[in-house]
Amino acid sequence: MIKMNMKKTVSLLLGLGMGLSAASAAWSAETLEQVMKRRGLTQKDLLAAAKTYTPTGGRDEYIVISSGGQSGQLIVYGIPSMRILKYIGVFTPEPWQGYGFDDESKAVLAEGRINGKDIRYGDTHHPAFSEENGDYDGRYVFINDKANPRIAVVDLKDFETKQIVVNPFFKSEHGGAFVTPNTEYIMEATQYAAPFSDDFVPLSEFNDKYRGGLTYWKFDKKEGRIKKEDSFVFELGPYSQDLSDAGKGPSYGWGFTNSFCSERYVGGIEKGRPPFEAGCSQKDTDFLHVTNWKKAEELVKAGKVKKAKGMYLIPMKQAIAEGLLYLIPEPKSPHGVDVVPDGSKIIVSGKLDTHVSVYSFKKIMDAIKNKKFAGKDPYGVPILSMKDTLHTQVQLGLGPLHTQMDAKPCIAYTSLYVDSQVAKWDYCKGKVLDKINIHYNIGHLMTMEGDTVHPDGKYLVSLNKLAIDRFNPVGPLHPQNHQLIDISGDKMQLLYDMPIPLGEPHYAVAIKADKLKPEIRYKSGWNSRTDSKSKWRTRAGREKIVRNGNHVDVYGTLIRSHITPEIIEVTAGDEVSIHLTNLERAEDETHGFAMYNQNVNLSVEPGKTVSATFKAEKPGVYPYYCTEFCSALHLEMQGYLLVAPKGYKATGAVAEGQKYTKADYEKQVKTNLETQAVIDSVVAFITSHNYKDFPPVVALVEDATDQLGFAEEAKKKSEEFAAKGDYQNATLWAGQWWQYQVKTADLGLRAKTYLEEHGAKKVK
Amino acid sequence: MIKMNMKKTVSLLLGLGMGLSAASAAWSAETLEQVMKRRGLTQKDLLAAAKTYTPTGGRDEYIVISSGGQSGQLIVYGIPSMRILKYIGVFTPEPWQGYGFDDESKAVLAEGRINGKDIRYGDTHHPAFSEENGDYDGRYVFINDKANPRIAVVDLKDFETKQIVVNPFFKSEHGGAFVTPNTEYIMEATQYAAPFSDDFVPLSEFNDKYRGGLTYWKFDKKEGRIKKEDSFVFELGPYSQDLSDAGKGPSYGWGFTNSFCSERYVGGIEKGRPPFEAGCSQKDTDFLHVTNWKKAEELVKAGKVKKAKGMYLIPMKQAIAEGLLYLIPEPKSPHGVDVVPDGSKIIVSGKLDTHVSVYSFKKIMDAIKNKKFAGKDPYGVPILSMKDTLHTQVQLGLGPLHTQMDAKPCIAYTSLYVDSQVAKWDYCKGKVLDKINIHYNIGHLMTMEGDTVHPDGKYLVSLNKLAIDRFNPVGPLHPQNHQLIDISGDKMQLLYDMPIPLGEPHYAVAIKADKLKPEIRYKSGWNSRTDSKSKWRTRAGREKIVRNGNHVDVYGTLIRSHITPEIIEVTAGDEVSIHLTNLERAEDETHGFAMYNQNVNLSVEPGKTVSATFKAEKPGVYPYYCTEFCSALHLEMQGYLLVAPKGYKATGAVAEGQKYTKADYEKQVKTNLETQAVIDSVVAFITSHNYKDFPPVVALVEDATDQLGFAEEAKKKSEEFAAKGDYQNATLWAGQWWQYQVKTADLGLRAKTYLEEHGAKKVK
Repeated sequence: MIKMNMKKTVSLLLGLGMGLSAASAAWSAETLEQVMKRRGLTQKDLLAAAKTYTPTGGRDEYIVISSGGQSGQLIVYGIPSMRILKYIGVFTPEPWQGYGFDDESKAVLAEGRINGKDIRYGDTHHPAFSEENGDYDGRYVFINDKANPRIAVVDLKDFETKQIVVNPFFKSEHGGAFVTPNTEYIMEATQYAAPFSDDFVPLSEFNDKYRGGLTYWKFDKKEGRIKKEDSFVFELGPYSQDLSDAGKGPSYGWGFTNSFCSERYVGGIEKGRPPFEAGCSQKDTDFLHVTNWKKAEELVKAGKVKKAKGMYLIPMKQAIAEGLLYLIPEPKSPHGVDVVPDGSKIIVSGKLDTHVSVYSFKKIMDAIKNKKFAGKDPYGVPILSMKDTLHTQVQLGLGPLHTQMDAKPCIAYTSLYVDSQVAKWDYCKGKVLDKINIHYNIGHLMTMEGDTVHPDGKYLVSLNKLAIDRFNPVGPLHPQNHQLIDISGDKMQLLYDMPIPLGEPHYAVAIKADKLKPEIRYKSGWNSRTDSKSKWRTRAGREKIVRNGNHVDVYGTLIRSHITPEIIEVTAGDEVSIHLTNLERAEDETHGFAMYNQNVNLSVEPGKTVSATFKAEKPGVYPYYCTEFCSALHLEMQGYLLVAPKGYKATGAVAEGQKYTKADYEKQVKTNLETQAVIDSVVAFITSHNYKDFPPVVALVEDATDQLGFAEEAKKKSEEFAAKGDYQNATLWAGQWWQYQVKTADLGLRAKTYLEEHGAKKVK
Repeated sequence: MIKMNMKKTVSLLLGLGMGLSAASAAWSAETLEQVMKRRGLTQKDLLAAAKTYTPTGGRDEYIVISSGGQSGQLIVYGIPSMRILKYIGVFTPEPWQGYGFDDESKAVLAEGRINGKDIRYGDTHHPAFSEENGDYDGRYVFINDKANPRIAVVDLKDFETKQIVVNPFFKSEHGGAFVTPNTEYIMEATQYAAPFSDDFVPLSEFNDKYRGGLTYWKFDKKEGRIKKEDSFVFELGPYSQDLSDAGKGPSYGWGFTNSFCSERYVGGIEKGRPPFEAGCSQKDTDFLHVTNWKKAEELVKAGKVKKAKGMYLIPMKQAIAEGLLYLIPEPKSPHGVDVVPDGSKIIVSGKLDTHVSVYSFKKIMDAIKNKKFAGKDPYGVPILSMKDTLHTQVQLGLGPLHTQMDAKPCIAYTSLYVDSQVAKWDYCKGKVLDKINIHYNIGHLMTMEGDTVHPDGKYLVSLNKLAIDRFNPVGPLHPQNHQLIDISGDKMQLLYDMPIPLGEPHYAVAIKADKLKPEIRYKSGWNSRTDSKSKWRTRAGREKIVRNGNHVDVYGTLIRSHITPEIIEVTAGDEVSIHLTNLERAEDETHGFAMYNQNVNLSVEPGKTVSATFKAEKPGVYPYYCTEFCSALHLEMQGYLLVAPKGYKATGAVAEGQKYTKADYEKQVKTNLETQAVIDSVVAFITSHNYKDFPPVVALVEDATDQLGFAEEAKKKSEEFAAKGDYQNATLWAGQWWQYQVKTADLGLRAKTYLEEHGAKKVK
């Protein structure tokens, strides 16, 4: 009655399952009209649904990398489905990914220490894709931390964080990361001025000793790492520098960085002074900083720039003398600066002004060439006049912030924070074309590849700072609201409201999905954080435990469905390093590894090797297990760390539980032979179809073949023990043989379903 | 040319904006048919889109609380939109929520320490809603940690974690949390056997000294907290206990807990022994544990149970003697045990058997009453026979795991892991009704309120363990795939594939959305973790800095757009506690607070008071700022912590930047008067419509009125300084007056848009 009766299930597997999965006549109890009526959908809603709904197995056109705000992570989602695909741990430890739990990723986080202190979060703001000739190349993403000025490098071949660099001069940084057109450099500007030294400097010395700055981090695209030693920093006035953008085309070699609080105001509301918000927004203009990074690089290479704190520091005096730095007034408290695709113009929005200001790069260069300066700032930096450098100004509305570009020439979109709108306008003719209400209070906005030299248009995402009433309520802390807007027509059309469940994203970038070719597995024994073979890698059958004084290295492996070793014995006071290699080659066959009370929690994707080092302080029993539901026998993928007291001498053997007889052995073998019949039926189904035309099925068949190979090994062991009359071990190995058959059947059935659902044809 | 020209923008605000936001004739460039063709959508896809797409501002019917697996969090999403609304920090620190960063939530996480050690993650598995009479009451959610046996309590009025309790006996725990019908208790069972003591016990003593267990945690619904001192634990045999379910109706007072590895096998593949997976799945049956919690509670209340480790421990001997514990064989390696809505039957799936087994509670009771036992386990626990207790067995397919119920009588849905299918069947008649393929390898499944006494049917979510090829690739670590299935008709229909971007959820529960009534703000000065007034709360104008030896308490406040105090001066070596109260009352007006290099990162929702305590070790300058884009002046919401060296004596005054004259003052006043004209226009628009019929607009108007009040205060200060001839301060305060006007305009414009979009009517 009980136990898998395999013969009987053949019909179940091959008949019933298939019949029922096929579509029947009565597909839905409701018609489309009935559904629309029940759910209150309009024709427009239906059209928006059709533009965004992505059926099972479908693919998104664009992949978005969004900052995760204070979550210290990056968010990956698809357009137009607006489904979130992944959170990537960057500055904050994240246990699902084992990030900050395995030794390898701890080393990445350790690069982000400041004054020797682990920083356990980040305030991420502006992700930037790596570029080649001003277009996204799909290789890397960079992201900054405003709270603790740092830049991280994420590799898009595995969506993992590879490097964190700390800015040794800054104490606050909002304006990162922005890249130059070939990712020569990653730009990072200060926000709140502070001394470049790490010392205490009183606010009475604000004007003289507090500084802003702009770092150009050198990036080595081949190695995929920032080279601090080749990077340089501009010393700037103690204004609150903000966002940047790099020039391209005619403006290649230059960078543009805006600022607010050029009033150099220091608040103190607690002492009756007007607050920062009043004093930092009093003047009509702030400063757009124009920097010549190409010339600065030449100076660096020529040995003309001095090093400080392990990188090059360009003092303001030198920048002025060498013609590397200019200021241009820009309207009141700007938030965004954006270079147009052809590089000829720079668009700035003063958030307390109703205009966007379009500067002409040619006019800027002419003024510089002609030394036509309107004056100098208190530090001697030459100021060009707005009049001489402006192409046009356009009145858009209240609170203009950021601008992104369309595929159509001269068309741009600007976010209006106070108006809660997006404006579509023409920056050549200076004309407003359309507006759409968003919900609510938009910060950044983003079009598809909208900050490259070849924007795609099509969609726009409005990154709204307030959601208020848009979603089912979930307590006082609300999700953010990213709204997807169709910009393919003349009029913008709202398509979708997407709640952000974790973090407050600031900016996001979207890349054509087909530019990304991520890996699905690592080379076997791979340290993914250093991109090299792990010295701790282990092959099947080579697992071992090596003691070296009080340190114990465990060289282990993971495979469906056991951890080798299953028992680890150490002594209290030992330092233990468990190194685990996932032996799987199959897609999505990640194993996890968690251990009681030791903060050991690892994610080991196919091929990866990770390590966990901890002190086994207290004698006791510490179960461990696989945390990913990897197979039917997942729960049985377990083991024990035993920490014996010092001086303990083992006595008894491992306890025996259930006993098995020859009859048990023979019963198991009979089951196995029946199971083999099922497998053969599934194999017959697969091979009688054109399965080789379906790569996912080919992968499943390869995996199934591996599992059957393992089954064969277990069968052999089982038969050897039976030949010796050891029916205890013979039965258990016969059980293991069957376990591998079940794994084979699992794969075979998935392959069969795939063929059925994808219209495979009978062959011959 | 520059600066907000307010008069000119009146027309922009009231004319252009409205005109353009209204729908035009050419709404979309494409027709529905064109979109379907372009995106390859079938009629079925369109129907599924219509069933799931939720337009802006729409609401979901059900709210799902899903485990976040190894992320140590809970995931909140909506059905049918499948949009994720929130990740709730539970066992893992999460900076966006300030969870594990503010002192208040650190205290919650500290409750979860084991052996004095902070555990920085959890492996969450099974969320459970609190119940009243077997129905969800929408008040609390409980969630367990498998890796480090703990249970957490989340309050659904603010979606925050309020309590963590550590199980002092267990070292591993998969089978939590399940509640009794009135949430009298929360059930939590061991997974991997281990000694109940914290000592080292060798595996040779596995049978004698390793133990399983089942804890009934007492819950005080009024207080919203678990009462450890009133909770009790059943000692059980060293089987791997698994999931539980509580009896209801006729079976009220009883609990059901299954197990695997009743073979009591201890692996050791590294020594040539067959692995756990073989030895733990060899027998045809494992044990369903039947416990009488009602009688156990009586014994506890009668003082007949001894206490150990701060709670009651019921040894197996006592449980046997008192008739509290029975075993029933259940098919091979079961994973799910589920009591049917009327409480008459218990459904168990042996994952290595093709059947589901339906036990009759009446038959179980009859066998117990008649003492009809088939034998005893090695610990003397009486075993009832399957034959005597089974209602029926139904062959469903390969790898049956979990069962959930429909609103229709006798209809259940069971997940088939190996088959990658869901089976719909009739547990009364023992008949299979339908099957559907899922993608891939389903673990748990969930119907709407499907484990209550009144399931809702309608939708089913398949929690698939593998996604493989379903989504755009994001590297070797794949998202999970939750598939939404329509179960309203006779045939199940796949509606939606939802990637889970973070964590591997195990189980989820769904509640009718209208049962939840979360708060949108806290009472002013509230400690949300203890649900009481914070002793550190501060009112506007009462901010202060209090020194007590080397400890400095900062009583601060947050409001659009300044932090009070803006300057904090301490001495190196001081311990600093910054206590911040968010003075806002407006929905979604959360402020954040981050400080350089101090791991200070707070989320302060309206009304909340939170604290951050840290040691100011190193002299230096530490900027701080608001991390939530709360207003147009958000970036200017900043301040400085100055850590002076010991013995430092302040000399100079705060540095002065920009200077202002009478002309500046007058210019600012003129702008303010123009701005007031804009505000008046917006006010006129609002009040000329039936705005009082729209509660969100009423809230906006209240908030705007507050902001105008603040403007009035700043105006007064400005005029006082002007009267004294201090045009520096007069100008700055006039600027602050204008800032409040901008905030007022922001709110007014949102209110106006809302009225336009919701068909408000002109009044009078």
